[in-house]
Formats: sequence, C-alpha cells, structure tokens
Amino acid sequence: MNREYKNCETPDTFVCEDYIEEEPKLCELDKSKTYKGLVGIYVDETLITYIDGIKGELYYRGYPLHDLVANSSFEEVAYLLIYGKLPTRSEFTSFKDELIKERNITDNILSILKSFPRNTTRIELLRTSISALSLYDPDDYDFSEEANIRKGIRIIAKIPTVLAFSHRIQSNLPLIEPSEDLSHACNYYYMMTGNVPNNQFERYFDKILICHMDHSINSSTFSCRVTVSTLSDMYSGITSAIGTLRGPLHGGANERVINLMLNEIKKKENVIPWAKKKLENKEKVMGFGHRVYKTWDPRAKILREISKKLWSNPDVIEKIPDLQHEEHKGKIDNIYEMTEILTDFMIKNKNIYPNVDLYSAGVLHALGIPTALFTPLFAASRSTGWIAHAIEQLSDNKLIRPRLRYIGELDKKYVSVENR
Amino acid sequence: MNREYKNCETPDTFVCEDYIEEEPKLCELDKSKTYKGLVGIYVDETLITYIDGIKGELYYRGYPLHDLVANSSFEEVAYLLIYGKLPTRSEFTSFKDELIKERNITDNILSILKSFPRNTTRIELLRTSISALSLYDPDDYDFSEEANIRKGIRIIAKIPTVLAFSHRIQSNLPLIEPSEDLSHACNYYYMMTGNVPNNQFERYFDKILICHMDHSINSSTFSCRVTVSTLSDMYSGITSAIGTLRGPLHGGANERVINLMLNEIKKKENVIPWAKKKLENKEKVMGFGHRVYKTWDPRAKILREISKKLWSNPDVIEKIPDLQHEEHKGKIDNIYEMTEILTDFMIKNKNIYPNVDLYSAGVLHALGIPTALFTPLFAASRSTGWIAHAIEQLSDNKLIRPRLRYIGELDKKYVSVENR
Repeated sequence: MNREYKNCETPDTFVCEDYIEEEPKLCELDKSKTYKGLVGIYVDETLITYIDGIKGELYYRGYPLHDLVANSSFEEVAYLLIYGKLPTRSEFTSFKDELIKERNITDNILSILKSFPRNTTRIELLRTSISALSLYDPDDYDFSEEANIRKGIRIIAKIPTVLAFSHRIQSNLPLIEPSEDLSHACNYYYMMTGNVPNNQFERYFDKILICHMDHSINSSTFSCRVTVSTLSDMYSGITSAIGTLRGPLHGGANERVINLMLNEIKKKENVIPWAKKKLENKEKVMGFGHRVYKTWDPRAKILREISKKLWSNPDVIEKIPDLQHEEHKGKIDNIYEMTEILTDFMIKNKNIYPNVDLYSAGVLHALGIPTALFTPLFAASRSTGWIAHAIEQLSDNKLIRPRLRYIGELDKKYVSVENR
Repeated sequence: MNREYKNCETPDTFVCEDYIEEEPKLCELDKSKTYKGLVGIYVDETLITYIDGIKGELYYRGYPLHDLVANSSFEEVAYLLIYGKLPTRSEFTSFKDELIKERNITDNILSILKSFPRNTTRIELLRTSISALSLYDPDDYDFSEEANIRKGIRIIAKIPTVLAFSHRIQSNLPLIEPSEDLSHACNYYYMMTGNVPNNQFERYFDKILICHMDHSINSSTFSCRVTVSTLSDMYSGITSAIGTLRGPLHGGANERVINLMLNEIKKKENVIPWAKKKLENKEKVMGFGHRVYKTWDPRAKILREISKKLWSNPDVIEKIPDLQHEEHKGKIDNIYEMTEILTDFMIKNKNIYPNVDLYSAGVLHALGIPTALFTPLFAASRSTGWIAHAIEQLSDNKLIRPRLRYIGELDKKYVSVENR
C-alpha cells in the first residue's frame, strides 16, 4: 500500500505540499524586490566545488582541477566528489569494481531503447532511460544515504552504456557490450566508437570527462537539488537534471560550436570576417564569455592544450573525415587553428575569453566522437556532480520553495460563456 | 545534424552553460547571507495564481477559486490558466475537442507500460511515460509558444490515460480505452475505476481536479520553471515536476492521511487520544498546517463540504469497502466525522488549520479512487499549472541559476594513492 515511503528516514515530516516549519524570517531582505534568475542569490553552503573567477581556478573538494586532470582519473575524481576525500587503495579498488559491475543494463531497458523512434536526440533517450532505470533498481524504495550512493554509482556506470546503445541503435550500428577490462573512459569511448582508444586518446578522453564533472550549482544541478529537496529519489533528481541540461542555454553549446566551425565558418580565412560581422550585428559569439570567470576558464586552458596536440598530429587529422561528418568529406581546416584565431580576435577586441565549450568541441571532434553525443557526454560526466549535490542536499535538507510575486488583477467576476 | 534546436526562436543565445548577459547587481542584498530553501525569495513576477493567506483565498488568473469550483469545469479552468482568459464558446469547443482527440497514447507507449515490472509507484511510471511521450510528439523540435501549448494540451489529455492504463496493468485489470463522449473528469474517473460516474460523482471529481490545478510556485512548479529556463522543452519541464512531486514533502500527503485513518486511527474514539499523543511527542500531524494560509485553506473548505455530503450518504458509504481496500472489509468509521474531530481538536489546541490533503483523502476514498492513484491525481491536475508556468517562464525568460557558498578548504595537495 504505502511502499513509496518505506525506509524513508523522516516519515513525520510528510505534510502538506507547501508546509515548512518556520515563518519566513526576512527582515534583512527587501521583500519588494524580485530576484529574477536568482542571480547572485546563495541558496546553500557547499563542500563540493569552488570556482575562483578572478584567478581562473576550479576546485573539486578543495583540489585544483589542473592537479586532478594531471594526476587522477575519472573514477578517482568520482570517488572524491561523492565521498569528499581521495580513496585509499582498497576503497578505490572496490569502487572501480562496483562501477564495472554496474555497466550493464537489463534487456528490458534495451528493448525500450530499441522501440524508440529514430531521429530523436540522445539526451531525450537518456532522460527517459534514466527515469525507467529506477523501476529496476533494487534499492528503489530505500531512501537512505547508503542506498542513494549505490543508486548514484549505478547511474554513473550505466549512462555510457545507455548512450552508446541508444546512439548505435539510432545509427543502425551493431551494439557493443560494455567491457569489464577497460577503465570508465576507455570503455565509454569503446562502446560509442567501436574502437578501443590508444593510451593517448584514452587519457585525453578521461581528462575531458574530469573537466566536466562538476561546476557548482548550474541550472541542471540546481534542478536536481530542487527535486530531491522534496525528499524525492535519486533517479528523479538526475532525470530533472538531464531534462534541464537539454536546454540550449545550458548544454549543447559545444555541439553548436562544432557545427558553426564546420558549416558556417569552414575555413581559417573566414574566421575574422565572420567574427567581425557578429560583433557588428551585436550578436553573441558561441563558446565565449562566462558569468563567473573574468579570465581564462581553467577547463578551456586544459582542453586548449589537448586540442593543440591533437590537431598538430597528422595521424589524427588524417582520420577525422572518416570518423564522421559524411557531409564534410572534403578537407576541413584545422579546428585548433581556427579557434586560436577566434580567441585572439575576441580577447583583443572585446576582452572576452573562450569558455570550455569552444575547445571541447575541437577535441571531441578530433577524438572521433559523433557530434550527437557531445551534449550527452556532458551529462555522463556531470552526473557525478549531480549525485554529489543530491547527497549533500539531503544531508541537511530544506525544501526549496521560493515565491512568485502576483502582479495581475484580483476578484474578477466569473461570467458564464453566454455572456462573454 | 542539429535538429535539437531547429525552430528555436533565440539561436544566438546558445552560449556557455553558465553564461548570462550582465554582472550580478546585488548591492541591495547582503551577499554574506545564505537563503537556504529560498524561503520568502521572490524569483519572478506572475500573472497566474495568487494566494491570500490571511483571507484564505486562492485566485486563478484573478478569479476566486470558490467561484470557479461552483461555476466552471476542469476544461474551462485549464483554458483560463493556459491562455489567461475565459474562452468564448467557440474557443472552448475547439479546446475541448483537442483535449478529447489527444487522449489516446500510441501502442509504443502502451508496450512500454506493459513491460514495466510490477509493484512500482504510479508516479515513477508517469515520470517515465511523459519523458517517453516527447519522442512521439509531432512538435518535438518546435520550441515556439504555439508548439508548447499544443504539447501542453497533449500532456494534459494523455496523463489520465497513462495513469489509468499503468494502474490497471499493475493491478491485472483489463484496460479501458478513453471515451470520446465524456468530459475530462468523467473520462478520467471512468478509465481508472471502470465505472462511468453518476452526475454527482462527476461534479465532485471535477471540483477536486479544479482545486489542485495550480498553487503558485511550489517545488514541482519551481523545478519545471528551472528546467525550461535553459530553453529546454515542455516534456523536460513536466518530467522534472513529476519527479519533484514524488517527494513526500510535496506530493503524497493525502495518501498518507488515508492510510493513517485506515490503519492507525481506525475508529472515531481513537482520534483524540491519537492526536494528544502526537502533540505530546511533538510530532507533526499529517494534513494540518500550511506555510501561506493562516486560516482555512480555501481548498480544504471546498473539499470539506464535499466530504460531508459524501459521508452522510448511506448509498456512498455502503459501497466503499467494495470499491477497494480488501484488507478493510469490515465496517470502517466515517472518515468525514473522524477528520472533523481531528480538525476541531487541532484548531482548539494548536490554532493550526487543516490543509487540502486532510479532506481530499476522505473525498477520494469515498469516490472509490484507489489510494495508489491519489498522488498521481495531483500530478494529473497540477500538470495544467506546470504548463501555464512553463509558458509564462519562457515568455520572458531568464536562466535560473543561483549560487552555492563554498565553505571548505582550498588548495589541497594531491597525494598519490601510495601515500594516502
């Protein structure tokens, strides 16, 4: 009967939809103000991520990103984000084993993926599949922190499988079962592309994943925290986050950067005229500008180095047209060089710096990742952050429920349809 | 290639995940404050719903709820909430026709519902099905307001079908196809229970739906607005809202009230001793208290009257044990009388008023609605409000992206696993 809330830790707080304990205490706030977009409003404290926009540094659990990218792996950073500390060797081994064990999805989810119509975005398939996965989770009715971590590990492990399967089904390619012998990054790359990456590609792909794992409370992470703040489950939180990421103001910018490079700018000599026209028309330039960073986005710096290495390697460049983009069979210009010209122009003319999306586009393209999987990759990586934030939210929860200021008429008289 | 954003009206705002135009301007805010739960923070202006907590009145688009409940119908109020005005006769006819036309779900969604494991909550099935429905929506790649309204109408029309089908599949009952001759409320009731309600039951069920259609920016509505604020799609917004509603701090309270009455209190004479013990132990009492209303919740008042009428009708009472709750075959006490005793006690002793959930539980039970469908009914009704809010958010959108205050250490040194 009441299975929904079995094992929930706080049964006595199950009250009305809007109930919260105390009266709003807002003497310090000007109640006549409306904080549209919640710009600059701090909704909670966190121990997960810090963005230093002046120094251009990003910290996960206090560790500088560049240090983690240089020394660590996706699995280790996932452990760090979720548990708040770096693992001992045995903790790390069992964490990695769990991630590997959970890579498979049930036949039931696979049938659903096969039943979906073609030409759907991978992110819609992912949102639906993650929502469906909750029905098969052995901890579905357990809302404890331990169960939430188990669910989180399952979600992180299964997202690459769901993405690779659904992409290959949509593209009429044979499915590639997850391997138990490969690292998270390596297996993910392998399932998508059908090729086990060489060591260099594996490391680059791992670094991209690490760069995207958390970025404090962007909109997808915020929607995840709002969802779980009603004491809803982990899958609901991640489903909300994926749906939020789908929006072009959040995810999808790197997809647009690559399409811009390939379809609109096309050649190095077109970069400056194209950018000048954009600025003349007061249009925004994709891949530039950031709310928090006033200097180089540290993730952009890391991916810029990788892009430089990839696009100066003749072996890599030679393979790119074969990997994808059938419509661009002809020689395409060096994307790293194109982004460098654009970056130089934008900094000189507008003092505006590239963001992570500008460089991730070129790197993912060089690595042979299909464009349709750029935004989903963001979800695959960021899922770790979402899970860490959901756990943090629930560890000291308060229902997130703001207000809307009504500005319409009141006490209108109902008039029957005959008299309208 | 880039189908995701085709037809989106604002392609040039597709930028980085965190980008917004201007600097935060927060001189009027104390930046050292953290607004946990966003209590009392106004996130936007609205023309949809106003709650007057002092007078105990709820307004949809400026019309008092009691007036709409007395004179209008689910379909008309849905039109009012979405379009902001009451329809003319021809507008109303075509709106109703569209809702009827969209009641069916594709065989593909039905197969998915059939494939799901048993013993899952109806709300998880609904969250997954609504996410899946987007894949079949003919406007999936159209992000215009007109397309969003069409999607909204489809969602409102299909939710009762998805709920009734999934419930009857889970309960091994034969499916009942939607009727094209019945009103929204009548058809919804019919598909769930297998019986076309008499006029009285239809009106009562319609009134319950109207009472739940919007309540300003509760957490589910907020998560919907956060999701679409990235310019994500309507289905993503509604999927987030359903997942958020799943949480026991938001939806589900009426399910708990009925289980409390049936399993814990059971008899009228137990009400006062049970309530005294709750207060002695400083536990909350389900179905009481509200953040905004300082007097009677107007929805509770409306449902209290309906409850009184239903539970004083011997024909209704006689049928209740047959309709459901096999485990309570014996005579159960009059739930209306039990809630009255509890209400009287709580107002006298704690000056705390009943909320909508206290009375909706007794009404839905008397109407023969299966308990497992109480929370989903909330979603079916509230979907209209979610859609109205999504459209309002997008009509003057600003990315909803607050901040988190980092309170941990910084500049930790990475130590290799050997040295941990």
